[in-house]
Amino acid sequence: MSEIEAAVREIAEEMRVRPDRGAVATYIPELGRVDPGQFAIAVATKDGEVIAAGDCNTPFSIQSVSKVFTLTLALGMMGDVVWQRVGREPSGSPFNSIVQLEFEKGRPRNPFINAGAISVTDLILSKYQPREALGEILRFLQYLADDDAIYIDEAVAASEQRTGYSNRALANFMKAFGTVTGTVDYTLGVYFHHCAIAMTVRQLARAGSFLAHLGRDPVTGFSVVSAERARRINAVMLTCGHYDGSGEFAYRVGLPGKSGVGGGILAIAPGKASIAVWSPGLDASGNSHLGRIALEKLTQRMGWSVFGA
Amino acid sequence: MSEIEAAVREIAEEMRVRPDRGAVATYIPELGRVDPGQFAIAVATKDGEVIAAGDCNTPFSIQSVSKVFTLTLALGMMGDVVWQRVGREPSGSPFNSIVQLEFEKGRPRNPFINAGAISVTDLILSKYQPREALGEILRFLQYLADDDAIYIDEAVAASEQRTGYSNRALANFMKAFGTVTGTVDYTLGVYFHHCAIAMTVRQLARAGSFLAHLGRDPVTGFSVVSAERARRINAVMLTCGHYDGSGEFAYRVGLPGKSGVGGGILAIAPGKASIAVWSPGLDASGNSHLGRIALEKLTQRMGWSVFGA
Amino acid sequence: MSEIEAAVREIAEEMRVRPDRGAVATYIPELGRVDPGQFAIAVATKDGEVIAAGDCNTPFSIQSVSKVFTLTLALGMMGDVVWQRVGREPSGSPFNSIVQLEFEKGRPRNPFINAGAISVTDLILSKYQPREALGEILRFLQYLADDDAIYIDEAVAASEQRTGYSNRALANFMKAFGTVTGTVDYTLGVYFHHCAIAMTVRQLARAGSFLAHLGRDPVTGFSVVSAERARRINAVMLTCGHYDGSGEFAYRVGLPGKSGVGGGILAIAPGKASIAVWSPGLDASGNSHLGRIALEKLTQRMGWSVFGA
Amino acid sequence: MSEIEAAVREIAEEMRVRPDRGAVATYIPELGRVDPGQFAIAVATKDGEVIAAGDCNTPFSIQSVSKVFTLTLALGMMGDVVWQRVGREPSGSPFNSIVQLEFEKGRPRNPFINAGAISVTDLILSKYQPREALGEILRFLQYLADDDAIYIDEAVAASEQRTGYSNRALANFMKAFGTVTGTVDYTLGVYFHHCAIAMTVRQLARAGSFLAHLGRDPVTGFSVVSAERARRINAVMLTCGHYDGSGEFAYRVGLPGKSGVGGGILAIAPGKASIAVWSPGLDASGNSHLGRIALEKLTQRMGWSVFGA
Repeated sequence: MSEIEAAVREIAEEMRVRPDRGAVATYIPELGRVDPGQFAIAVATKDGEVIAAGDCNTPFSIQSVSKVFTLTLALGMMGDVVWQRVGREPSGSPFNSIVQLEFEKGRPRNPFINAGAISVTDLILSKYQPREALGEILRFLQYLADDDAIYIDEAVAASEQRTGYSNRALANFMKAFGTVTGTVDYTLGVYFHHCAIAMTVRQLARAGSFLAHLGRDPVTGFSVVSAERARRINAVMLTCGHYDGSGEFAYRVGLPGKSGVGGGILAIAPGKASIAVWSPGLDASGNSHLGRIALEKLTQRMGWSVFGA
Repeated sequence: MSEIEAAVREIAEEMRVRPDRGAVATYIPELGRVDPGQFAIAVATKDGEVIAAGDCNTPFSIQSVSKVFTLTLALGMMGDVVWQRVGREPSGSPFNSIVQLEFEKGRPRNPFINAGAISVTDLILSKYQPREALGEILRFLQYLADDDAIYIDEAVAASEQRTGYSNRALANFMKAFGTVTGTVDYTLGVYFHHCAIAMTVRQLARAGSFLAHLGRDPVTGFSVVSAERARRINAVMLTCGHYDGSGEFAYRVGLPGKSGVGGGILAIAPGKASIAVWSPGLDASGNSHLGRIALEKLTQRMGWSVFGA
Repeated sequence: MSEIEAAVREIAEEMRVRPDRGAVATYIPELGRVDPGQFAIAVATKDGEVIAAGDCNTPFSIQSVSKVFTLTLALGMMGDVVWQRVGREPSGSPFNSIVQLEFEKGRPRNPFINAGAISVTDLILSKYQPREALGEILRFLQYLADDDAIYIDEAVAASEQRTGYSNRALANFMKAFGTVTGTVDYTLGVYFHHCAIAMTVRQLARAGSFLAHLGRDPVTGFSVVSAERARRINAVMLTCGHYDGSGEFAYRVGLPGKSGVGGGILAIAPGKASIAVWSPGLDASGNSHLGRIALEKLTQRMGWSVFGA
Repeated sequence: MSEIEAAVREIAEEMRVRPDRGAVATYIPELGRVDPGQFAIAVATKDGEVIAAGDCNTPFSIQSVSKVFTLTLALGMMGDVVWQRVGREPSGSPFNSIVQLEFEKGRPRNPFINAGAISVTDLILSKYQPREALGEILRFLQYLADDDAIYIDEAVAASEQRTGYSNRALANFMKAFGTVTGTVDYTLGVYFHHCAIAMTVRQLARAGSFLAHLGRDPVTGFSVVSAERARRINAVMLTCGHYDGSGEFAYRVGLPGKSGVGGGILAIAPGKASIAVWSPGLDASGNSHLGRIALEKLTQRMGWSVFGA
């Protein structure tokens, strides 16, 4: 058994029994029903292998982790023009803050806060019809994970459609400033649906692999993005991937990462591995409580921090 | 000639002749007199060698780069209690913003914005008299750089004493909240003086080496801080080291770094090198214009980005 | 000819020919078509007479002036419970600012900024169906003005329905905080429609009369609200009636007043008169340019300032 | 006994025995020692009479009430140029907020928040030496009150000199923006001293009389300011005189007024009376608790609200 296998197995076992599990998000009612006892981890190595443990075959709602892939897609479609719409600075504010947006005239700080991701989705909609756009996003994830079983959880999407007032406020606010250009309801519809994509940690770790390997899929060798773009997406993940907990994640885990309110986190150890963890209970900043702890332990044990082995 | 030597030499030459040089800071009058034509670069390798080019023997005012060393010193003196006084999240605001400080009741976002660094200095003053504290800071830098010639430029310190109204506002504001506990004038006096330390890029690259090598000086092998602490200081540098230009620096350069308004930048390539650049002209965010470009070129050429070789 | 008649006539003539007329609001497209050359003024005296001049029989879109009447209606329906939903402090921000709303957890500063007025409309909808609510508001104005000809301009309402993204953002934002409780689309529908009520200055001056006379209609003697409530509505108009130009209006005009983006202003000289002015061109704060000047001249000439005859 | 005399006497008696007295300010240590059991009221009528009750011969620290007089003095010295330095809009923020100051580049919202009053003091210092300036301010109050016994309480001034960190932050902040032009320490010295002026309610009501009577002293008939300026000062008092409690004061009391953290309030009933109340206990907004209640009762009983008799 390799060192990675041992680490993954032991961490999963440790996390399975820990009593502190955080609190499941309830602001999307459908997510509130998920059993907080679950934990899963998967590591996609540079050899293309996926080593996993825990509830690693259970699909979960990837939510904001999807923003990494819509950003990648939008950059592929229109290049750096994306950065005219959204910045790439940490926001210093919670994920749904509208204050900064007012001071900065409707231009979101970065593509990983909600406003920024809605803006990126709106940009994709400038090229596609809503249904097509959603198909593109889903197929992109299926392609990256090499698994057509990945699907959109319609119940979660519908749940957020009914209750996503903050996001509706953000989108209308940007529409008033002209930084959302499409029809607000369509943009939000696609946004809520791509956040509702369900994946297992196995699929997610595999889908993120290109970011760990200079933009190439380590299994097929196909280039997804250029090496420079992969580096840059990683940089934005590190500085902005955890809302106003980004500094803390960098401090403790030391890897680029993107969390979702469904309890998933995708983390990238450049040159080494793509890692997905999932545990539904969240900490005060809205990031997976056990997921973050598991990543901290794994990184430390494997010497994978980008800030020094 | 090694690849590093070639890179350093060519970049220095390219920077020397570039017409775009940014604007020298004028808010500290004494700094406004520096010749913007200067450029220097030094790389301290893991073998303990320092490879330098340009105006690499000219001392410059390290200003905010000193914050990396006062943070290291304070952490060494009192450990993680430092983090009760200052956070470690990016601020999303300019270096001298007082707004966040009001919302967050006088607790600065991180130790690298001015308020945070003043607070760290105030913490050091809880253990030392002002003159002693300043001596400790200076000796720490002389020790790290293995060079007793490093000195405090009294003219610069005096210049900032006379004109540092923003910093005086910040310090008094924190005193009102109780997050500065000492005498405001003493705290500011020490702060202005450690910002006025003058160093060459050779000295600075050497002084930062321990951060690139798990907390150990690669020449002597002596441990300055633990490997974990070195990683964590690097993490804070990456997310917070360039004020509201931190995301941009991570995106373009891909290294932990700390800039100063004197035009210096210290950047750390973990496991590889400690790099100091200096050019007095600043960009709109107050960071060295040519310094940042030089680091971008060096990192790209050497494959040193922490986000993927 | 009485002194009031002379004043009204001369001011109307002076305003008619002034070259500086401000800029017509364009953010509601339908309002952008109004001829900026128009000016009207009407004074309803304590004897119940209405003295008018200029385009005083031309209906215009009263827009935010309607907020005075929806507030009065809501206070009549549920009493001081209204103040649990909205504050009564000046906002110090533009009419559509969302920042304060975030800091204050969705409770609008006062009933005269857009968020506050939407919240008041939402409160009315807790007792009535949308169509009924709108009927109540319209009938209340017809009753106060004693004129059934007052109507809702459907083209203006539809225009704002299509383009009111800021208001949609505010309403969704309050819905997320729970300070709007009804269906956002219904609340906004009623809000946009009551803002689209069209009145002449004659009708408006008459409708506001009860506020100048201790809550009683000076013609019929019927009590609309208690004397105390009339005083208090006037107080809120004075401190909050002109968004972030409220201080300026108090300084220059010295009367409680409420402006609308259609160019109308209702001002109250307690114990003396209710005054309506209209001129479509706005100043930088979004208040009628000539309307404010006309009121300043009238108040000064008649010695009607509440701050000293 | 006149109606005013009866009202004053009864209100004083009622306030004397009320159990709810608010909390004495402690942020200036010297003020924290004042007995909260005290209450005083004085009304200066248009006939020049002063009707008083309670502890009406006990001097108290007028604190921010002094800002009305420094504003009047500055307007007299340089006219409307004062308004280039400070605005006249309500701030919507607490008295010592620094946030707005940053967004508005160092120009305070109005002359009655601390920053604005410091700026007005700084303006007076552009014409006088510190000691002279303070003499001018004191003599102006002695002249208005026709009483040379009015003095500066040096212990209070010294207490605030030692502890006024917020004000020191504000002054340095404005100095950094260039909206304070003199020496910060001198400006603050004069500011702290004029806030430390001690007066009785009798003296204060008399000193404010000119504001109730078109700028003229009703006893001597001498003009202090023009009628227009008196009205305008009253307008600023009404919209800005109670920090973020200004709307509430207008709503409840209905008079222009200025409060001080020493528990004093000066209120103006235009054309009728100048009223001073004092009770050291403050409410949550930092305004005299019983003082405000007493004014509400007096205004209601006498029908003095500017918003309707």
